[in-house]
Amino acid sequence: MSTDPTEAQFMKMLTFMKQPKQVLEIGMFTGYGAMAIAEALPADGKITSLDIDPYLKTWVEDVSKDFPEGAKHEIVVGPALDSLQTIEGKYDLVFIDANKAEYKAYVETLMERDLLAKDVMIIADNTLYVGYPMLSETYDTQPARRGFGDAVREFNAWVRDHPKLEQVIVPIRDGVSMIRLKCLSTSRPPLVKAAVA
Amino acid sequence: MSTDPTEAQFMKMLTFMKQPKQVLEIGMFTGYGAMAIAEALPADGKITSLDIDPYLKTWVEDVSKDFPEGAKHEIVVGPALDSLQTIEGKYDLVFIDANKAEYKAYVETLMERDLLAKDVMIIADNTLYVGYPMLSETYDTQPARRGFGDAVREFNAWVRDHPKLEQVIVPIRDGVSMIRLKCLSTSRPPLVKAAVA
Ligand SMILES: C[S@@+](CC[C@H](N)C(=O)[O-])C[C@H]1O[C@@H](n2cnc3c(N)ncnc32)[C@H](O)[C@@H]1O
Ligand SMILES: C[S@@+](CC[C@H](N)C(=O)[O-])C[C@H]1O[C@@H](n2cnc3c(N)ncnc32)[C@H](O)[C@@H]1O
Repeated sequence: MSTDPTEAQFMKMLTFMKQPKQVLEIGMFTGYGAMAIAEALPADGKITSLDIDPYLKTWVEDVSKDFPEGAKHEIVVGPALDSLQTIEGKYDLVFIDANKAEYKAYVETLMERDLLAKDVMIIADNTLYVGYPMLSETYDTQPARRGFGDAVREFNAWVRDHPKLEQVIVPIRDGVSMIRLKCLSTSRPPLVKAAVA
Repeated sequence: MSTDPTEAQFMKMLTFMKQPKQVLEIGMFTGYGAMAIAEALPADGKITSLDIDPYLKTWVEDVSKDFPEGAKHEIVVGPALDSLQTIEGKYDLVFIDANKAEYKAYVETLMERDLLAKDVMIIADNTLYVGYPMLSETYDTQPARRGFGDAVREFNAWVRDHPKLEQVIVPIRDGVSMIRLKCLSTSRPPLVKAAVA
């Protein structure tokens, strides 16, 4: 499913603030999020989207080829965990929005392969996942979603407990996590503690 | 009232992304938001807080003086609209959180006095104001808030319609607006339109 206008505009604002040279999107769909980001990129900024569906690459390229944003956008087709083994670079901004069961593996792979810039901002979508991560399965109106719900809960807890990561989950649409690599200059705990799920 | 941990952590993430040299906070209270921002500032970053209450300056300075963040923080006492006439500089990040009836005047003064960096990000707090801007006064459980509710509605519409401003209102706590100066390089409308109140 496509992201919504508020979240797309939020991503655009973050991109304006960050001024990233290299952006990675994992899970593109029709490119709505990718174009919101592309519109806010600096002149020398690029965005790479990974998607499993080859038709989407053809379709998005066809729609965006007449706009300057199209020239800043590269699309890599294949399962994201495979593509993450082949892409190169240091990403300043990462938008995770593909298979909800693989979020942890995406971040692990990005860290293992050293694809993250030191001051990277990772945005992970759907981290409130319609409330499933916080609810007992007694309340599952769509039991098929339970697997993703559990995976998202594990992902959120894994990020929270990871010694190198820091996050905040903001209640935009279905939940948006902002995740960064910790690099506090002092060894004392921060004055203002992290608010996490 | 102080901001909450989620919003403070959100401000901290934005500050990490923006890496501002000069931050302005309008309305400080006990300095919770100011310290969240100060923790994320680059080595040469500074934050200036404006507050009407002289006791808060003494109190916050006393608490923060033993931390490195204290050295990055300057507090100016007085009505914000007066202080905005005397401060100098170009602010990269502005956090507006003082008198809800004066938000429009704060932004107008910042623009008139040319205090905003070209790529400034302005964060305005309480722009959903407990729902008052969107509700008829029939539903006012606290009629004393109606004045601020109307002022916030006018502020949101003024930003939306301002030819030089662009915003998104994100539903964090009591509503947080992210506002920037428009600078699209082309004259065509953006591919991804702004989502506004
Ligand atoms: C929620 S949509 C992405 C929405 C998009 N980020 C936006 O801003 O509108 C999820 C996308 O992830 C893709 N996807 C799902 N599983 C994948 C996988 N294992 N590898 C790569 N892409 C995958 C789907 O084809 C779909 O296009
Ligand atoms: C909501 S609190 C600020 C909370 C703070 N930003 C934080 O992050 O915790 C509002 C503050 O604005 C101050 N204030 C109210 N009206 C003001 C005015 N006209 N000029 C300057 N400060 C004002 C109050 O004294 C109060 O400390």
